[in-house]
Amino acid sequence: MEYIDKGICAPKGFKASGIHVGFRKNKRKRDLALVYSETRCAAAAVYTRNKVKSAPIMVNLEHLKDGMAQAIICNSGNANTCAPNGVEVATGACRLAAEALGIDEKDVIVCSTGVIGERMFLEPFEIGVPKAAKKLSYDGSTAAARAIMTTDKVAKEIAVSFEIDGKECRMGGIAKGSGMINPNMATMLCFITTDANVEPAALQKALDADILDTFNQISIDGDTSTNDTVALLANGMAGNAPVTCQGEGFDTFCQALRKVSVALCKAIAADGEGATKLLECVVSGAPDKDVARKVSKTVIRSDLVKTAIFGRDANWGRVLCAVGYSEPEFSVENVDMRLASGSEEVEVCNASVACDFDEEAAKRVLSRKVVRLLIDLNLGSESAIAYGCDLTYDYVRINGSYRT
Amino acid sequence: MEYIDKGICAPKGFKASGIHVGFRKNKRKRDLALVYSETRCAAAAVYTRNKVKSAPIMVNLEHLKDGMAQAIICNSGNANTCAPNGVEVATGACRLAAEALGIDEKDVIVCSTGVIGERMFLEPFEIGVPKAAKKLSYDGSTAAARAIMTTDKVAKEIAVSFEIDGKECRMGGIAKGSGMINPNMATMLCFITTDANVEPAALQKALDADILDTFNQISIDGDTSTNDTVALLANGMAGNAPVTCQGEGFDTFCQALRKVSVALCKAIAADGEGATKLLECVVSGAPDKDVARKVSKTVIRSDLVKTAIFGRDANWGRVLCAVGYSEPEFSVENVDMRLASGSEEVEVCNASVACDFDEEAAKRVLSRKVVRLLIDLNLGSESAIAYGCDLTYDYVRINGSYRT
Repeated sequence: MEYIDKGICAPKGFKASGIHVGFRKNKRKRDLALVYSETRCAAAAVYTRNKVKSAPIMVNLEHLKDGMAQAIICNSGNANTCAPNGVEVATGACRLAAEALGIDEKDVIVCSTGVIGERMFLEPFEIGVPKAAKKLSYDGSTAAARAIMTTDKVAKEIAVSFEIDGKECRMGGIAKGSGMINPNMATMLCFITTDANVEPAALQKALDADILDTFNQISIDGDTSTNDTVALLANGMAGNAPVTCQGEGFDTFCQALRKVSVALCKAIAADGEGATKLLECVVSGAPDKDVARKVSKTVIRSDLVKTAIFGRDANWGRVLCAVGYSEPEFSVENVDMRLASGSEEVEVCNASVACDFDEEAAKRVLSRKVVRLLIDLNLGSESAIAYGCDLTYDYVRINGSYRT
Repeated sequence: MEYIDKGICAPKGFKASGIHVGFRKNKRKRDLALVYSETRCAAAAVYTRNKVKSAPIMVNLEHLKDGMAQAIICNSGNANTCAPNGVEVATGACRLAAEALGIDEKDVIVCSTGVIGERMFLEPFEIGVPKAAKKLSYDGSTAAARAIMTTDKVAKEIAVSFEIDGKECRMGGIAKGSGMINPNMATMLCFITTDANVEPAALQKALDADILDTFNQISIDGDTSTNDTVALLANGMAGNAPVTCQGEGFDTFCQALRKVSVALCKAIAADGEGATKLLECVVSGAPDKDVARKVSKTVIRSDLVKTAIFGRDANWGRVLCAVGYSEPEFSVENVDMRLASGSEEVEVCNASVACDFDEEAAKRVLSRKVVRLLIDLNLGSESAIAYGCDLTYDYVRINGSYRT
């Protein structure tokens, strides 16, 4: 398996575009993305578990009932959530995309990201969708990745190639993240394409399993958005025998998916609102997987841990404190903890008691761009990783005036 | 029931002191508090639910088994948590207090607040406890309130008088809060004294019931500390017939306790690390009390809500988003929301759909020192309040370099 170029357009038969239409005032900011497959795709998606769901999610739940899709239309700048005419506009956007692409409107997935609760208008789609369709290109991944950004600072895209059934397959993805990101999806949108031939049920199974250790393990700020969506399209143009719900092909496909999703998760976490670093919390020695996931996620979302790491302060007591208030019940008598970056590690706590450690070495570790908190509960053999970022002045600045 | 002066020393027979000993480097910062009752008291306490507990909590669990106590010794500057010799030092502090006061060491409650995981020394207690005992005074409440502060900016004290059984009773309290404050107690310490005569079991029952709607409904940053303690001492010197677990006397006592605890909770929330305002989230129309409490607490701990209010930005979609991701299952179809301060209210959302509201009026409301988010779920008749604060640059500054 290796990394390749062209992101979401790396798989055969996928085109994308990203243009400025006017959902956002800044004319230099692209705000409408279109992704299109030349053939109909098996399609799977997962959505936010927030009880308040964006109108597009309601529409997608309906459109993906048959497990098939052929295009994705997505705007940034307005979340189309709690707007009085939300479903009408989301349905209208699908209809416009279907007309421009000559496909069935039920084969269009629609997504929105931006401010919640503002009125949504169809006009920008009426103007923009035909333009975006004209701009579709095999080199359009980056433009689409940019068009779905909100407060993201960098576009997020990735692609890999792998082999199933002797055929070369490709998988690519784009994502946006930034704020309102926590468990169970976030104002996190992620679109993944592949030319592997995968049955719809297998595609959904692979996605459902993957997110437990990837997208659901990211937390930027503990706020679970109303719009989170990960959509996965497989058009089968690689020509492999269909991947079903088990077997070697399925395993290989899941590995490729994991590679793509972890890369996008890290990119989302590292680019969290105001973030200066990527934090990875690795919990090992857990009695079961659920404990490992929950503890790592609880640590990664602690504001006190995040601000300490922003300040390069090895205040590991806050990390142990977060381990302690994580929801599952387990013994905290024998916790070991190390701070790590690259190949350097500093042990700060052994059997839940402070170590005498080198403060300078700890500061050096915490000064790097990727910081890992290694926590061994010494209770079993399960482990999990959660992805997050530090909490900075810029987070406050960005979110103190998001709408203005 | 009316407010009176002298805080924790308002009830008959209680003295307090607060001095600088050396747990903290700044010589102008008091760091050792002592509270003493002239007679033995019925005593009740509640502690953090963090699985990692400070050494003093371990000692208090033992000392309060008989439901009696006579003094509280508390240092700031070191949390005495995860220190190798923690229990030894906490026990030693009780012994020193007992010697200085001529009481049983099992009648001493010990508390610590400050940095987690640093070695703890008995020496400051050896020097400080006799000095603190000499300084005990009926005017010592404010000095004690100051001595337990960490990053708190203002001392928190309150007292009320009330009548039980025809006798005038008094209740006073001091508290410290600031950061690491969330549900289930926080690095929140609160000491409440009363001269009412209350049976130990009734005292614990009153406290257990009270915190569900008061201390457990505060959130500054979602981090539940290892040290949280609320201790309540009743010395009976008011001379009323003993208050038992039910009846009019018990009800009056609970009302007085609620008055004291709500005042301290608001003071703690308003003085949260970096806070510029007190937020109160009032959830009404809930199908049951649990939903009301959880929804209000979820909203109050949302970083996105907190930063928006810091920025005076009426981004109510974030509030509805937090309602949506709160844990209980309920319908979010019919949520009404108003922003309020003083007598001014601005309706921003009706039946879960955006209202056209006056942005200037909303900004005016959000500019005040106390902001209320009024959320009606329209599902029933239960309500609850949660207390919190905004998230500001100063929170990041304070917590980015707490140890240095």
